[in-house]
Amino acid sequence: MKPVDDATVERHRAKMANRKAVQDAEVAEKTLEKGLLMVHTGPGKGKSTAAFGLALRMLGNNRRVGIVQFIKGAWSTGEQPAFAAFGDRVVWHTMGEGFTWETQDLKRDIAAAERAWDKVRELMADNSIGLLVLDELNIALRYEYLDLEKVVAELTARRPDLHVVVTGRNAKPLLMDAADLVTEMTLVKHHFKAGVKAQAGIEF
Amino acid sequence: MKPVDDATVERHRAKMANRKAVQDAEVAEKTLEKGLLMVHTGPGKGKSTAAFGLALRMLGNNRRVGIVQFIKGAWSTGEQPAFAAFGDRVVWHTMGEGFTWETQDLKRDIAAAERAWDKVRELMADNSIGLLVLDELNIALRYEYLDLEKVVAELTARRPDLHVVVTGRNAKPLLMDAADLVTEMTLVKHHFKAGVKAQAGIEF
Repeated sequence: MKPVDDATVERHRAKMANRKAVQDAEVAEKTLEKGLLMVHTGPGKGKSTAAFGLALRMLGNNRRVGIVQFIKGAWSTGEQPAFAAFGDRVVWHTMGEGFTWETQDLKRDIAAAERAWDKVRELMADNSIGLLVLDELNIALRYEYLDLEKVVAELTARRPDLHVVVTGRNAKPLLMDAADLVTEMTLVKHHFKAGVKAQAGIEF
Repeated sequence: MKPVDDATVERHRAKMANRKAVQDAEVAEKTLEKGLLMVHTGPGKGKSTAAFGLALRMLGNNRRVGIVQFIKGAWSTGEQPAFAAFGDRVVWHTMGEGFTWETQDLKRDIAAAERAWDKVRELMADNSIGLLVLDELNIALRYEYLDLEKVVAELTARRPDLHVVVTGRNAKPLLMDAADLVTEMTLVKHHFKAGVKAQAGIEF
């Protein structure tokens, strides 16, 4: 690195002192604690991955986590064996039918989605669960496997301390309106375009 | 749900069969395997969280993970206790100095960033590591605690099977040019605006 002169050091200190004052004031303003409804959507990578990262963080805070996978059931993911390290602190349910373009069977997909939603209800009622990951629920809603109004109403009526994260592209506006946090993952650049295939530990 | 008629079932089947053909052709095209340089940037949530989710996936694939935190050292995160479940399969290094607006000491920050980069070099040379998470490296680069050209050159020259994910706002264009995958997390809606404070298991 280039040498740093005293004027630069002082400018940095003043700038950061100011930044800290702003930061501290912002933190002091926020006093509410509540279970959040979070949505990860958009065409980019990281929607499910960030949800699983949240699950990990919740486990690190000694809370239990429920995960319901609405679409990816048939995929062998790296998360499932990793979460096994936490024993019964992670409750996992997959629709077990794979992507909807694998089954091509609308009635089967609807029945599987409804069974998965029954599991969500059960986990929402379980006070030991601190975070519920509803992975690819947006896909099930997009294909109308589940009733959007009913899903949003039940999520909104959940117990107030439960955090929920919903993932998947094309989140419905009604769901985003009900959410506390909506993040869109945007694809800036992707290696699949350069012919790189899905690899263990990255895509699955 | 509303009843589903036969015509709808058939339309769904045909649409999904077509979708599957496109999907299969895309997968067949991609044959390369290589370590990826990934960047999570943007003002939204989920940059570090998705990187930790990737770490979890890599652990589920029985690979070791290295994590170097460039800025958040002083924060007590939920990830660290959670990763402890994986013993020596996760190697963790934090700069241990907190956010730069906490220290307000430019020379100390530069020295800490350089020590962290030395750790990156060590982990890049360790063949047992499958994924390296460089958390908030973009912040260290933005404040010029590290030399951008040198960092990008060393990342580009890493062993070819090593996956690396770099997180933080305001990723430098030179780094994004060198990356295989760039995802921007965009903030659509945030609960902090509604006065909700940072909560265990969500923000830390």
